[in-house]
Amino acid sequence: MHVGVGSNLYIGLVHHPIYDKRREVVATAVTNFDIHDIARCARTYGLGGFFVITPLESQIQLVKRIIRHWVEGVGSSYNPTRKESLSLVQVSRSIDEADHELTSLWKKKVKRIATGASPDPQNIGFESLRKLIEDREAPFLILFGTGWGLTQEVKDRSDYILAPIEGKGYNHLSVRSAVAIILDRLIGERS
Amino acid sequence: MHVGVGSNLYIGLVHHPIYDKRREVVATAVTNFDIHDIARCARTYGLGGFFVITPLESQIQLVKRIIRHWVEGVGSSYNPTRKESLSLVQVSRSIDEADHELTSLWKKKVKRIATGASPDPQNIGFESLRKLIEDREAPFLILFGTGWGLTQEVKDRSDYILAPIEGKGYNHLSVRSAVAIILDRLIGERS
Repeated sequence: MHVGVGSNLYIGLVHHPIYDKRREVVATAVTNFDIHDIARCARTYGLGGFFVITPLESQIQLVKRIIRHWVEGVGSSYNPTRKESLSLVQVSRSIDEADHELTSLWKKKVKRIATGASPDPQNIGFESLRKLIEDREAPFLILFGTGWGLTQEVKDRSDYILAPIEGKGYNHLSVRSAVAIILDRLIGERS
Repeated sequence: MHVGVGSNLYIGLVHHPIYDKRREVVATAVTNFDIHDIARCARTYGLGGFFVITPLESQIQLVKRIIRHWVEGVGSSYNPTRKESLSLVQVSRSIDEADHELTSLWKKKVKRIATGASPDPQNIGFESLRKLIEDREAPFLILFGTGWGLTQEVKDRSDYILAPIEGKGYNHLSVRSAVAIILDRLIGERS
């Protein structure tokens, strides 16, 4: 367990339950670029860890294979910076499983943060959430949806729903870009 | 030509000249994810445009094919948000070619900004550069290196070298993540 600023923040990249284009609840496939880009962001900002959340056995095995290759396998000497970032990654079958893991690690109730591209009356702003995370009273699990985003049920079961990144009339960032921007706003150095 | 904040800022994603792992000057292949992620960021932040810079004929044709597919082809009705973002993308054979294009569009000398992961005595900070861009006195071309980053010569020929994103002892973000964070710092809404 790290102890710097941000070390009580954990990412959950949710592949189920999320919406597809027609707002049906589905499970998406894992994207290799998501794992690498988000793991590097997590390492850059000193996060506690990064959970890839998927209930699909084939996807669980795929993610484990990727992690093993770069953390223990031939990849670890070929590219040590990947070893460093992918050491933060683990797979969970559900949001609850990731939550339980954190609860037993921290012996504290986990605060869940949902993210999304649409505004919500209950949104918390970036500055307010930044202060809460800095207080380090609890571990925070920030959830990002793949596909067309987190389901309403996931939002309803979260402690906070973070304000969306305001685009100029366009709110279609990749999840990789959204993670990078949001971590910088919540944890990044301020000059 | 757009007229909002950020519309005088253009991205150049440089595939040559850049360094490889051994600090040799090479040309990298274009990555599909780079084009999509960065185009979506450019559209989100209201940028003037996004130049994919490569001298390799095969890569030029590849990028043109991707743009055509999503802007004019069957992709444009399948996913209109890609049409909107990829409309901002064009290919240039060199940094100078992108520069000339902007000079003739704006009838003004282009200010070049180099980016990178290492600090440089001549670095300009994010807040100072943000103010310069807001003044809208000139078009700005911000250059991101693929591979192991922009060559020293490219940095020497730039008007500004932007400060690196400070990681917690780790500076290995993907170029996609770096673009997202830097655009948010330079152009993003401030609460």
